[in-house]
Amino acid sequence: MCRFTFYQGEPIRLSALVTEPTHSLINQSFDSREGEEPLNGDGFGVVWYVPELTAAPGRFRGVSPAWNNANLHEIARVVTSRCVMAHVRAATQQLAVSELNCHPFVVDRWSFMHNGDIGGFGKIRRALLSQLSDERFDAIHGSTDSEHFFAVLLDELAAEGNDADVEAIARAFQRGLERVRELVALHAPEEHLYINAVLTNGHEAVAVRYTTDDPDEGSSLHINQGQRYICEDGVCRMIDTVHSGSVIVSSEPLSEDPGWTAFKPNSMVLLADNRVARSLTL
Amino acid sequence: MCRFTFYQGEPIRLSALVTEPTHSLINQSFDSREGEEPLNGDGFGVVWYVPELTAAPGRFRGVSPAWNNANLHEIARVVTSRCVMAHVRAATQQLAVSELNCHPFVVDRWSFMHNGDIGGFGKIRRALLSQLSDERFDAIHGSTDSEHFFAVLLDELAAEGNDADVEAIARAFQRGLERVRELVALHAPEEHLYINAVLTNGHEAVAVRYTTDDPDEGSSLHINQGQRYICEDGVCRMIDTVHSGSVIVSSEPLSEDPGWTAFKPNSMVLLADNRVARSLTL
Amino acid sequence: MCRFTFYQGEPIRLSALVTEPTHSLINQSFDSREGEEPLNGDGFGVVWYVPELTAAPGRFRGVSPAWNNANLHEIARVVTSRCVMAHVRAATQQLAVSELNCHPFVVDRWSFMHNGDIGGFGKIRRALLSQLSDERFDAIHGSTDSEHFFAVLLDELAAEGNDADVEAIARAFQRGLERVRELVALHAPEEHLYINAVLTNGHEAVAVRYTTDDPDEGSSLHINQGQRYICEDGVCRMIDTVHSGSVIVSSEPLSEDPGWTAFKPNSMVLLADNRVARSLTL
Amino acid sequence: MCRFTFYQGEPIRLSALVTEPTHSLINQSFDSREGEEPLNGDGFGVVWYVPELTAAPGRFRGVSPAWNNANLHEIARVVTSRCVMAHVRAATQQLAVSELNCHPFVVDRWSFMHNGDIGGFGKIRRALLSQLSDERFDAIHGSTDSEHFFAVLLDELAAEGNDADVEAIARAFQRGLERVRELVALHAPEEHLYINAVLTNGHEAVAVRYTTDDPDEGSSLHINQGQRYICEDGVCRMIDTVHSGSVIVSSEPLSEDPGWTAFKPNSMVLLADNRVARSLTL
Repeated sequence: MCRFTFYQGEPIRLSALVTEPTHSLINQSFDSREGEEPLNGDGFGVVWYVPELTAAPGRFRGVSPAWNNANLHEIARVVTSRCVMAHVRAATQQLAVSELNCHPFVVDRWSFMHNGDIGGFGKIRRALLSQLSDERFDAIHGSTDSEHFFAVLLDELAAEGNDADVEAIARAFQRGLERVRELVALHAPEEHLYINAVLTNGHEAVAVRYTTDDPDEGSSLHINQGQRYICEDGVCRMIDTVHSGSVIVSSEPLSEDPGWTAFKPNSMVLLADNRVARSLTL
Repeated sequence: MCRFTFYQGEPIRLSALVTEPTHSLINQSFDSREGEEPLNGDGFGVVWYVPELTAAPGRFRGVSPAWNNANLHEIARVVTSRCVMAHVRAATQQLAVSELNCHPFVVDRWSFMHNGDIGGFGKIRRALLSQLSDERFDAIHGSTDSEHFFAVLLDELAAEGNDADVEAIARAFQRGLERVRELVALHAPEEHLYINAVLTNGHEAVAVRYTTDDPDEGSSLHINQGQRYICEDGVCRMIDTVHSGSVIVSSEPLSEDPGWTAFKPNSMVLLADNRVARSLTL
Repeated sequence: MCRFTFYQGEPIRLSALVTEPTHSLINQSFDSREGEEPLNGDGFGVVWYVPELTAAPGRFRGVSPAWNNANLHEIARVVTSRCVMAHVRAATQQLAVSELNCHPFVVDRWSFMHNGDIGGFGKIRRALLSQLSDERFDAIHGSTDSEHFFAVLLDELAAEGNDADVEAIARAFQRGLERVRELVALHAPEEHLYINAVLTNGHEAVAVRYTTDDPDEGSSLHINQGQRYICEDGVCRMIDTVHSGSVIVSSEPLSEDPGWTAFKPNSMVLLADNRVARSLTL
Repeated sequence: MCRFTFYQGEPIRLSALVTEPTHSLINQSFDSREGEEPLNGDGFGVVWYVPELTAAPGRFRGVSPAWNNANLHEIARVVTSRCVMAHVRAATQQLAVSELNCHPFVVDRWSFMHNGDIGGFGKIRRALLSQLSDERFDAIHGSTDSEHFFAVLLDELAAEGNDADVEAIARAFQRGLERVRELVALHAPEEHLYINAVLTNGHEAVAVRYTTDDPDEGSSLHINQGQRYICEDGVCRMIDTVHSGSVIVSSEPLSEDPGWTAFKPNSMVLLADNRVARSLTL
């Protein structure tokens, strides 16, 4: 289990996602309400895009709990961005906790984060690796199922070419998901996929809630869109939900405002131009 | 809030306290049952005495959560000792988490750990420091109320001379407690002391459960004594509780065996020769 | 021994100070040329001002060596600022390395970093602390001579009022230095001060090279000013040194360009409006 | 580049290898004399066997520099063992420093550490992995050439059966070395192997100095044997070098005593019963 938040829209201070809301991502690191366990204390990561400087986003991650990392609080306080990923981790193998295994994973301009589990990953790993391009194989630095899945997605994205729009990203994600589903069906047929994830290039993104198990067993995922997400006098909320300008996808609602909507089971949302471009069923 | 375990007796593997019991100290680091919050994830420390090599005990501490620290699991697995302290921390000031603030504190052959709070510590700190000997003042490396209280105790222990037996340790602790109580009464009269603590030289020890608040507001503390504490087939328990040989003092019972007894509110237990020498009311 | 770099001027990417120059601050962390030892591997810190968001600067610090901290490289790559402090540390007490002891120290909008040593600090510490205001006493979180000296400076700055200009900052620094000099003369007369330091509020700054020892024993400090400091094709340099716009103060020259000038022994440089306002002898 | 020390013999305090000698392993972490660079500051690891408790040795490792890790000093001070490995690391990829990549590597009762480089490792990695048994493939947690080579050795050891004596260990090592040499010859013929390493099960060990490059390009390795290695009054030395009882293999001599002998280029030393059983040329 993990928890994450993705943001696309008007420049926002990271603190408005990570520390300020009543149920901020840091709050979810020790008091998750919709996960199986309240605790996501095995590391964290934030990614923010700075397109005026570089296509590859900045990243800060660590193995300490998010709640007591002074550097994370500092960075959240002074960094703004139009595209943000933030993730808190509950490790499957707690004694192999390593910064290299902390989400989001970043390769060039692509970022990826995942909450869930590829059941039977140990049984499919050799086959999955054997399918990867040399470039993707070489770029895996950690041991998580998530980073391996990201490598599959990157190979599929390469097939879409350099100018992939959000529809192309969605296609690549669907093909990657299908590849992993087939590997599990072949090598670990009794296992299930649990894939809540976001994939972005800093401009377009796809957000997915998916499981091959009973849909009720999938993790939670919520979306909130409007003109702007603001924190004033200790209260955070999306304002002017009629107009677009900002969209948040989050494992759990960050705040008490009414705009949060649950993802349908087994659905994908395509995000572009700071709003939902399209939704589809997987 | 914090949780701790103290052991004195036949050589024991640290894992029998820290990792193996169903409600081991590591279990208490994420699932404390008798604390206000289940979480004690802001660092840990273990101290073990090796009298055949040196009077100053060995110590391993860190700021990561105890549950995901591979080194702690390793050390617990291969180290045995006749006198062990182990502590998991819930920091009051989470953004100042530092190894220097992790219990147990050690000075020469003395070790100390604390679960609780000196209310109004900020208001008494200058006065407390001004009372310390130069030696004790210079030896404070962190910022916790606990380490400052330990410095007071060490000054009181010095007054008892080098051959302090367990009664002398108890006297020193009582005088130190009285000094801090007076400082709080003077500078922060609306505040309370919450002092669950163990102080040892590796041979004798005193364990204290104390508060100036309503006794029900004090933290939990339990004791279990018998011939030996063993872990077999995944079950840990004190055996032969009629004979002495080993005694455990722990914030929460480590195991399901019936020997665990709660400390009386505002009481001190004197430990020597691997058993309870005497109990007294504070 | 430590090494540091201060920047004031046109917005600059932190990497142009910390990672890109041939003798960047990270290079100085393992290959210092003008220090007694080449190694400054006991932690690091960077501070950058973001006046459009907040007066208190952002800070990232850690106890790992600067050269292998992936997060530091990331932050340097994507953060720009008009006022930057960066510091790599060689700890006096290596076994008490702690994030709380890493420079720069920050209180509200003020930042401070130091390379050197207050000789006999252990002997003056109690007296120094007793002179501090409660506010400054309470805000000390670590154990370095540097942070204690900063507390003295902050008390002196408070005496200058809220609108302190660079001349007022310089007066406060001189009085603080005098106070510490007197404490050492009184309690540790055989010891010397070695104070290379920068103090800033994000707009104005003073940089100091000072020792009570033989001037040749003082640490190195250099300055470079011009229109802009740029990194192109792997070469970093100050351009258009006739015009003002950017100024760098650094323990060692970052690059091979000819603009670097050594501070005179026992001198202070006042910096405002992105250039040297005045220099004076201490 | 890395530096390491291996010990087999009478129970020794780890500090006699790691901290006490004038050129202890910690000294080599910042002042290596026979390496290309003086610095080995990218982490460390120690392994010690405790056969009376468990066949799998204890391990403590970390990514901080060995010189400033208080826990390492503590453990070295209070732990004794008859078989010890200790390693300080200079990482090839410094920004991927991770505890998972710190030597020694341990699988069950086997430990392995390496100083050197498998040239062209990136080019042979896929082929090397494809040759591994599932068990060995699954047990690789990091990304170093060293851990991958250890996996090859473990597969070769498995072929020798459970009761492998030191001759069997030597055969397994030679076959593993040959396999890697062939992979490099095939996929990266312009590259060279640099393999200084120790492999042990806690009772027997092989120590190797090897390179396919000009022998002068290989790393240094030294051996010292005698009755006992002791540290008295700040001086460490092997005593009674006529009799056997203790043997040390170390990248650089730990102390000034005359017993240190350089390994011949491309040689292997077989260690059993606390002395050299046999040497051979590779």
